[in-house]
Amino acid sequence: MKRVGVVLSGCGVNDGSEIHEAVLTLLALDRAGAQAVCFAPDKSQALVIDHFSGVETAEKRNVLVESARIARGQIRPLSEARADDLDALIVPGGSGVLLNLSDIGGQGTGGEVDADLRRLTREIHKQRKAIGFICIAPALLPKLIDTPLRLTIGTDNDTAEMIEDMGGIHVVCPVDDIVVDADNKVITTPGYMLATSITEAAKGIDKLVARVLEFTA
Amino acid sequence: MKRVGVVLSGCGVNDGSEIHEAVLTLLALDRAGAQAVCFAPDKSQALVIDHFSGVETAEKRNVLVESARIARGQIRPLSEARADDLDALIVPGGSGVLLNLSDIGGQGTGGEVDADLRRLTREIHKQRKAIGFICIAPALLPKLIDTPLRLTIGTDNDTAEMIEDMGGIHVVCPVDDIVVDADNKVITTPGYMLATSITEAAKGIDKLVARVLEFTA
Repeated sequence: MKRVGVVLSGCGVNDGSEIHEAVLTLLALDRAGAQAVCFAPDKSQALVIDHFSGVETAEKRNVLVESARIARGQIRPLSEARADDLDALIVPGGSGVLLNLSDIGGQGTGGEVDADLRRLTREIHKQRKAIGFICIAPALLPKLIDTPLRLTIGTDNDTAEMIEDMGGIHVVCPVDDIVVDADNKVITTPGYMLATSITEAAKGIDKLVARVLEFTA
Repeated sequence: MKRVGVVLSGCGVNDGSEIHEAVLTLLALDRAGAQAVCFAPDKSQALVIDHFSGVETAEKRNVLVESARIARGQIRPLSEARADDLDALIVPGGSGVLLNLSDIGGQGTGGEVDADLRRLTREIHKQRKAIGFICIAPALLPKLIDTPLRLTIGTDNDTAEMIEDMGGIHVVCPVDDIVVDADNKVITTPGYMLATSITEAAKGIDKLVARVLEFTA
């Protein structure tokens, strides 16, 4: 059974992992007979947003503890993730990617990516294993892999420009499709950067997971 | 477009809605061309569980605010739900059903169901519209509808006995199937009461949503 690392960044689109994207990833992996192995950094969230009002609260929450809600408790600290134990790596989107898996949300293109995610992604890439990043998560890739990568976050000009500034090659892509950098086994899809429904998000994510597993065969 | 009320009870299997079941419900409805209209009670959660350690914390959280994470902010207080505006009603599982949509988790069979959920469910039933309850949620049904209903929570003997004590008729059911009380248009499925994977949970939930929408045609 193929083991695919899934890195979560909290639980909720505005301050953590986008829940639909994360669950759709777990569903597509399980349906394909692959095992999802969930990880999240054991650290404080950058911030907490009230998802009903959209307003920031004074609460403190932990990324690993909140991510565990999506993973039904089956999750480990990202610091324990080893490329040798995994056949591929997937990172769903959500603002947690820019807030908790990196500080690009606060620092812009000069920001840094979580050290454990950086180490894991670079090891996975060095071992020629497949990497799938969803929604806004591809914005981290130029910070993670030295080779310029073909990738997408959909059609948003500002984000595409930010990615190009960091050294990525942005490719415009519709919501139900994927961009494949075959040389580097890196697959990306716009997810809720463009999706107006969960069905739309699922189409791109299903394709991404299928292609990740093809590279893993 | 058919409008189906989806009542959430928080965000996380141990103190709120089971996230996979909720997302799978939204996915199945959207794929079928129906509109999910999400609601949750605007009140404090009965308790908050750290889903990594499994231990109760001292935190206070609001059911509507946490449910909004699953609904990506598209949710309204349950007190505003009107049967006239809906074609059917679905309640996913998770411990929030027994903790936040009722106090059966604390009080046992003598417990009460949230007054707004009771009013809404009884109105929906009176209007001969379809009702789908998932996982542990069917345990509330004998408290909601006076007619004895055929329903399932899977195979758990203790819970089945509790349901029979409250006046329900429990039917043993495998994870990938549904129990249909056609006279009352009530559909139930075991979900994570039995599921050992998200794919298993999806099979029953897909069937439940399809049957709810058949009754709604």
